[in-house]
Amino acid sequence: MTRLEIFGVEGIAEVQPGDRLADLLAAAAGDRLRSGDVVVVTQKVVSKAEGRMAEVDPAEIRVPPELVEAESVRVLRRRGPLLVSETRHGFVCANAGIDLSNVAAGLATLLPVDADRSARRIRDGLRARLAIDVGVVVSDTFGRPWRRGVADVAIGCAGVAAVLDLRETPDAMGRPLHVTEVAVADELAAAAELVMGKASGVPAAVVRGVPRAWLREASVRAEIVRSPAEDLFR
Amino acid sequence: MTRLEIFGVEGIAEVQPGDRLADLLAAAAGDRLRSGDVVVVTQKVVSKAEGRMAEVDPAEIRVPPELVEAESVRVLRRRGPLLVSETRHGFVCANAGIDLSNVAAGLATLLPVDADRSARRIRDGLRARLAIDVGVVVSDTFGRPWRRGVADVAIGCAGVAAVLDLRETPDAMGRPLHVTEVAVADELAAAAELVMGKASGVPAAVVRGVPRAWLREASVRAEIVRSPAEDLFR
Repeated sequence: MTRLEIFGVEGIAEVQPGDRLADLLAAAAGDRLRSGDVVVVTQKVVSKAEGRMAEVDPAEIRVPPELVEAESVRVLRRRGPLLVSETRHGFVCANAGIDLSNVAAGLATLLPVDADRSARRIRDGLRARLAIDVGVVVSDTFGRPWRRGVADVAIGCAGVAAVLDLRETPDAMGRPLHVTEVAVADELAAAAELVMGKASGVPAAVVRGVPRAWLREASVRAEIVRSPAEDLFR
Repeated sequence: MTRLEIFGVEGIAEVQPGDRLADLLAAAAGDRLRSGDVVVVTQKVVSKAEGRMAEVDPAEIRVPPELVEAESVRVLRRRGPLLVSETRHGFVCANAGIDLSNVAAGLATLLPVDADRSARRIRDGLRARLAIDVGVVVSDTFGRPWRRGVADVAIGCAGVAAVLDLRETPDAMGRPLHVTEVAVADELAAAAELVMGKASGVPAAVVRGVPRAWLREASVRAEIVRSPAEDLFR
């Protein structure tokens, strides 16, 4: 039976451009990490480490729309200062994922250029430093249509499935399953958020106990981003 | 520091109309449940226990559109046999949440009439039988626009927050947080799905270790369902 354990990684200082997150994670939690763990790292620290930041007016409390437009390929909806747009990666979210919270005044974080690559770098770095094989998910906080409140989802992954394909699996009655592609990377991101909080300065969490079969080469962009052609809401 | 533990509840036999889920949960896992746990129960067994089922042609492998329409107040999109509609509860999902998998041929499960009430009944039943106070989330599996794969969300809850309101909380830099309403009930449902699987006959899971402050009176319908007026995608 699957039993998961989830704990936050504390003790990571303010991340600076050029920092290697694998080094910081290894220093903060190296003795607690094991092969088979999934390490969920928030977009915020990935963007800071990669220098994906833009300058904004320090008095600004909202993401400037022109910055959102510059990071988007298409604006889907606009209401007052809120834009819902499609990013270059194909993510649809508020303000192109640009964020002014938990960053110094005068700066905004932008989404990583390629968060699957960011996840691979962290995975490879942890393997090199600690001789362990972990899965890595880069998470971000997205709103959803039709439902209030935000929830964390995966924007990148490495070494752990983004989507599990159960299309050949029979259900408990032996009939074919119709709900068949499960976005486990999103569920891992959501689960990790429960121990990270939004204000507590815990930028990473460890999910221990995922089935070995989930640990494989993977990509959020290839597996989760839905092409506009197959999308009913774009 | 928050540390969560998540495990599935096995050993629950096929649920029949009229079954009391609190009795079944207490029999299967009573010795492992503690006050402060959150018990996540899938819609499928809640609907079966409450007799929320409809007869369909036993040869049918897709949800009949007329059944979806009968359970909906509005159809948002239609592509081939797939309907995305708004249910009476205000949920927007595929096929009004009606499902033919993990149910006997000739039957389909419908969503519970009021899944917050379903959750309260289970919570109250576990309190009466085991003298413990738990939170309860009723979960279901929804698709999402823009993202491939499904993920579990909450359709009802009792004794645990649906949405945490962090609007007065400063971020790690002392500035006000803008992302401020976190749908923890959805994240709990997603986390629980990781140990339940879609075909394994594990209809419930326990999340242990959630902060005490989250354990309060709550309602998915009141806190998570977004009114059409404030929704940009309806």
